[in-house]
Amino acid sequence: MKNYEIGQQAQMTRTISESDVYLFAGITGDLNPAHINEPYARGTRFGRRIAHGMLTAGLISAVLGTRLPGAGTIYLSQTLKFLSPVYIGDTITARVEILRLEREGKGAVLKTEAVNQDGRLVATGEAAVLLPEE
Amino acid sequence: MKNYEIGQQAQMTRTISESDVYLFAGITGDLNPAHINEPYARGTRFGRRIAHGMLTAGLISAVLGTRLPGAGTIYLSQTLKFLSPVYIGDTITARVEILRLEREGKGAVLKTEAVNQDGRLVATGEAAVLLPEE
Amino acid sequence: MKNYEIGQQAQMTRTISESDVYLFAGITGDLNPAHINEPYARGTRFGRRIAHGMLTAGLISAVLGTRLPGAGTIYLSQTLKFLSPVYIGDTITARVEILRLEREGKGAVLKTEAVNQDGRLVATGEAAVLLPEE
Amino acid sequence: MKNYEIGQQAQMTRTISESDVYLFAGITGDLNPAHINEPYARGTRFGRRIAHGMLTAGLISAVLGTRLPGAGTIYLSQTLKFLSPVYIGDTITARVEILRLEREGKGAVLKTEAVNQDGRLVATGEAAVLLPEE
Repeated sequence: MKNYEIGQQAQMTRTISESDVYLFAGITGDLNPAHINEPYARGTRFGRRIAHGMLTAGLISAVLGTRLPGAGTIYLSQTLKFLSPVYIGDTITARVEILRLEREGKGAVLKTEAVNQDGRLVATGEAAVLLPEE
Repeated sequence: MKNYEIGQQAQMTRTISESDVYLFAGITGDLNPAHINEPYARGTRFGRRIAHGMLTAGLISAVLGTRLPGAGTIYLSQTLKFLSPVYIGDTITARVEILRLEREGKGAVLKTEAVNQDGRLVATGEAAVLLPEE
Repeated sequence: MKNYEIGQQAQMTRTISESDVYLFAGITGDLNPAHINEPYARGTRFGRRIAHGMLTAGLISAVLGTRLPGAGTIYLSQTLKFLSPVYIGDTITARVEILRLEREGKGAVLKTEAVNQDGRLVATGEAAVLLPEE
Repeated sequence: MKNYEIGQQAQMTRTISESDVYLFAGITGDLNPAHINEPYARGTRFGRRIAHGMLTAGLISAVLGTRLPGAGTIYLSQTLKFLSPVYIGDTITARVEILRLEREGKGAVLKTEAVNQDGRLVATGEAAVLLPEE
């Protein structure tokens, strides 16, 4: 069994493309015009098309499922605060850090956050997981 | 301004295809083998490939952004508990219901949940949003 | 049964992304260079890559199948005239309007059209449908 | 300039995958449950999920734009009758045939049709095009 410790960190970075946003709209059905209608988006407080908040959440989930704790992780829960918009073309870094171990070492709570290319926090929260068994 | 009331509900239903899961893996980078490697998945507690939890969350977000409250909604936060796996081929209904109005009627908290074709709850949580202005 | 009346209208708007056009090319096999080869497209009368006409038709079909008449609609026929090119990045509004009811109220003929962000008509036609039964 | 003659034919064949239908739903916004909700589709006259009619039309358009008349074709108009449902997994052959030349040899009208793996006609119609210039 892999060893997990408080304070361990991992991250992934990705530039959010227009196609990411459009595909995300297609597979979830979230055709909110803020994501797929540029003239509409120009009239909103954001000024242009933004990515879905759950796409950013998906990047966090990707770090959990592929890096820390990695394959075999069981996702129990996630809290998310969306602090700033993510625009098409932004480069987002999703980071996770083990805050504490639980369930006799079988589970963990991680701090999860995402920042953009300017270091601005776009989302924060916490994840609870069961750690991989093998 | 549209009128929102406690107890208002909306939902959307979608059969989760293999292509949904593979595209979601591609756009988030969540290439956890539980989602995209069938022989590996057969060896897990789930027995076959499961959808990403955040894909289910994306369906909830789709209801919020396109039906209730609808276009113009600003997503502030979301809590999520993942209660049961979602398999490729499952038909998921995402539902939201207004629990309370906040911020002098400018915000709302909604109960959010997703159930599969057998009525089994696969995810629950709460969303906080700013309501559309126009 | 829902009530349908002559003059009822519905519409949807979407900015056409490069990924829309490329995915449409992939799923139909329509790899005409006017859609996916920018240097070639610069040498055509259009001057840059254009979207497939049937992608615009798909937006019309989306309004019919999800808004008016909505889920349960059976598509019988469609006529289409392609009047102006749709470029990648254009924002297209597809509109439908009930012109007449037929088949003892079980069918309808709708005017269908699509306009770009400048109000220019890019496609027109008529659809015949069977109305949803429930 | 290529030579075009009355009676010339071309065709393309493609098995319609679930991912074709889901991607088509995503890029057009046509989330009609007949296409993406299997339990719903079982309750319809069709009995299971069907492809979008405009996806079949896209196959016809693909033959026009890549084979006959081929690259450089300008699409003027198309009529479509949808005669039978196309199911996920069906193998559709789209065929076109030049019916007549027009506009002093610069244009053509083509018979267009699509058949499934059993030879059953699923769509028919006519296309009018401007022929490629070079």
